[in-house]
Amino acid sequence: MLPASILAKKRDGKELSEAEIQFLVQGFVQHSVADYQMTAFAMAVFFRGMTAAETAALTLAMLDSGVRLPRDHHSHVQSDRPRVDKHSTGGLGDKVSLILAPLLACHDVLVPMVSGRGLGLTGGTLDKLESIPGFTFQLDDNRRDRQLDSIGCFIIGASDQIAPADRRLYALRDVTATVESIPLITASILSKKLAASLDHLVMDVKVGSAAFMKDRQQATALADSLVKTGAKAGLPTTALLTDMDQPLGMAVGNAVEVNETLECLEGTGPHEVNELTVQLCAHALVDCKRYKTLTEARDALWESLRSGAAKERFFKMIAAQGGSISGPLPLAPASEVVAQDSGFVESLDCERLGRSVVEMGGGRRKAEDSIDPEVGLEVLVRIGDKIDRGQPLIKIYNKNNAANLTSELRNAITLTPEPVAPRPLIIDTIVHES
Amino acid sequence: MLPASILAKKRDGKELSEAEIQFLVQGFVQHSVADYQMTAFAMAVFFRGMTAAETAALTLAMLDSGVRLPRDHHSHVQSDRPRVDKHSTGGLGDKVSLILAPLLACHDVLVPMVSGRGLGLTGGTLDKLESIPGFTFQLDDNRRDRQLDSIGCFIIGASDQIAPADRRLYALRDVTATVESIPLITASILSKKLAASLDHLVMDVKVGSAAFMKDRQQATALADSLVKTGAKAGLPTTALLTDMDQPLGMAVGNAVEVNETLECLEGTGPHEVNELTVQLCAHALVDCKRYKTLTEARDALWESLRSGAAKERFFKMIAAQGGSISGPLPLAPASEVVAQDSGFVESLDCERLGRSVVEMGGGRRKAEDSIDPEVGLEVLVRIGDKIDRGQPLIKIYNKNNAANLTSELRNAITLTPEPVAPRPLIIDTIVHES
Repeated sequence: MLPASILAKKRDGKELSEAEIQFLVQGFVQHSVADYQMTAFAMAVFFRGMTAAETAALTLAMLDSGVRLPRDHHSHVQSDRPRVDKHSTGGLGDKVSLILAPLLACHDVLVPMVSGRGLGLTGGTLDKLESIPGFTFQLDDNRRDRQLDSIGCFIIGASDQIAPADRRLYALRDVTATVESIPLITASILSKKLAASLDHLVMDVKVGSAAFMKDRQQATALADSLVKTGAKAGLPTTALLTDMDQPLGMAVGNAVEVNETLECLEGTGPHEVNELTVQLCAHALVDCKRYKTLTEARDALWESLRSGAAKERFFKMIAAQGGSISGPLPLAPASEVVAQDSGFVESLDCERLGRSVVEMGGGRRKAEDSIDPEVGLEVLVRIGDKIDRGQPLIKIYNKNNAANLTSELRNAITLTPEPVAPRPLIIDTIVHES
Repeated sequence: MLPASILAKKRDGKELSEAEIQFLVQGFVQHSVADYQMTAFAMAVFFRGMTAAETAALTLAMLDSGVRLPRDHHSHVQSDRPRVDKHSTGGLGDKVSLILAPLLACHDVLVPMVSGRGLGLTGGTLDKLESIPGFTFQLDDNRRDRQLDSIGCFIIGASDQIAPADRRLYALRDVTATVESIPLITASILSKKLAASLDHLVMDVKVGSAAFMKDRQQATALADSLVKTGAKAGLPTTALLTDMDQPLGMAVGNAVEVNETLECLEGTGPHEVNELTVQLCAHALVDCKRYKTLTEARDALWESLRSGAAKERFFKMIAAQGGSISGPLPLAPASEVVAQDSGFVESLDCERLGRSVVEMGGGRRKAEDSIDPEVGLEVLVRIGDKIDRGQPLIKIYNKNNAANLTSELRNAITLTPEPVAPRPLIIDTIVHES
């Protein structure tokens, strides 16, 4: 096999075999297929797409470039608890992972969650957790396995040994305009999730102005690709398509999102955050047969929130990972943006909101930037809300003079005199047809 | 400017500016744009194409990556003789360059010809000339300029300093399935021709089973791109579209092609070789206003052949480049393939013919292979010829046992009982609409 012949085949719109895809990815790992061949391949895939079989082969080849988390834990007794996780394509104020991991763990499943840092406008789960003093996401294998066994969940960072082919290819795609390819995105997400030896995955595919996928057609195509490829690659996957034209919940930042997480863990957080989390968890639990129906699963999940069980599990997970938290974390001094007119909320400029948090020091411009956990926002209104002049719109937690910031943030919220319909959060559910 | 943004623009089908293309190519030369970015760019160009303006900008940027041959010669007197050349996209038995350079030089123009070696099934002009004992294509600048001044032509190899960006990009395209892109082929050809400081170019674009362009539509598109881009890049170009479903002339090899060249230089070679050479030269001479009409130019050119002037010029050029030739070169022992049936020649399998010559040692499988100049073929028949059983079809010049070779070569010629129309050699002429 010659790399150039495989590239020509893809370029000409023909389906590649599993062996050809393995040859390419293995060659890439061993440096017998050059970076400049993989980027030309990525561009050809951008134009020609991939079938579900090709995407599954790519996913598995990238998975095989690295290690998998072991299914057997330190006790050398194989657990019969299914391993489940959720992955989101990323959105402003998305703290669902923090709530979901302990909540699912209350229902006799294992949640080995491997997360990332944030770069750009949306924050990373690891950054949010690092607001908690002492918290570490670097656990040695033994400690990690014991924690999963005893508490049922962990949230750790990805090691260099997880799908290294994907890591290298992603870095190349980033500088060759080949990020925006549904099969490549699919293989990148699923190879890393397969490396956690999962049995079931729920995907939160965001769509809207603040999401990676701006329009519904593209987001549906991605969700569809994830579900179909997951099925072929041995990772049954359900995807929810959710609205990202406004932040998820009120809190945007790091400590402020942890504080909202604490409320959500009692079921008293912003309704849409609780609702989305419960719905994602319900799908996961029905998929792995912990409950028969979504309704049954939802009832049980709400009970874990209301009873305090989920919050207790969260505190256990944090403590096991060295963190110390018993209530809301301290925030920077607060100020408010108030409405200068009355009207209805027509739109929220998520890019402006996200950029403001980065500018306050709550996000990264470059990978090596450090983060101030105490700054952030609470966006007090949602699309469709009726607003009276003088009503608070946004609460700002900031350490510096916020004069420019206030007008910048006021401009992020557009009011209109006409009533506006609120937006449903969950737009669609994509389940594999088995 | 960011390379990834330029790639995204091309990927999305938008037209790049001259500055963006310059930025990419200059960055590639200076290694601030990586190989893996250029190959992704090449693949995007494969899918999206380029406008004539973009192709001209790419041509000029690649030209500017290297040096140009000086227009002023050693005498420090600027010549008013126009500089003209021909380029062919490559075909079996194509020895036109060897005839054309001295023939044009008889008509008060300069022919600074920069040629290449062969790789694969079609031979290279330099390899053919190296059949002549002592011939060198490595001339120092001074000797090269003096030869052009006194004899009017040279045939040399491309130095590393001619369009190095094209050289590097071509090597990358070769291993990333991005050779077959009309704008990239156009820029590659024209950048090297512009480096010879030409005033006029005639292109021989081959079409057919033995050509790089297999179908007429693709070949026409390439010819059109060369003519349009040449006009924009300051190199007026005329293109002939010529048939390559059978070898050009009879001789296929190295010394055997030089011997056919000697006949053609007297006007007594295979008619189609003489005819194509004269037609290409006539266009060149009319384009640079040496003659008013093609007919006038053709008459003058035929006269140079019949008078012996062209042949004399050829011997002068060879002598100036160290070569020693006064008549036909020695060949390997000859044998014949004879017809086992009667009929009409329906087709010639040029790939088989070319491969046989490579297998005899007359061509290269790898760039470092050496060539035996004395082996080769004379293909004695053309499509449409009436053949009698027992009639010689191919003359083989070979040094080893030719048993397999004979049957292999016999199978390269397909006979049919029904009469077959001969194929016209010159299919179309593409002139710039000015």
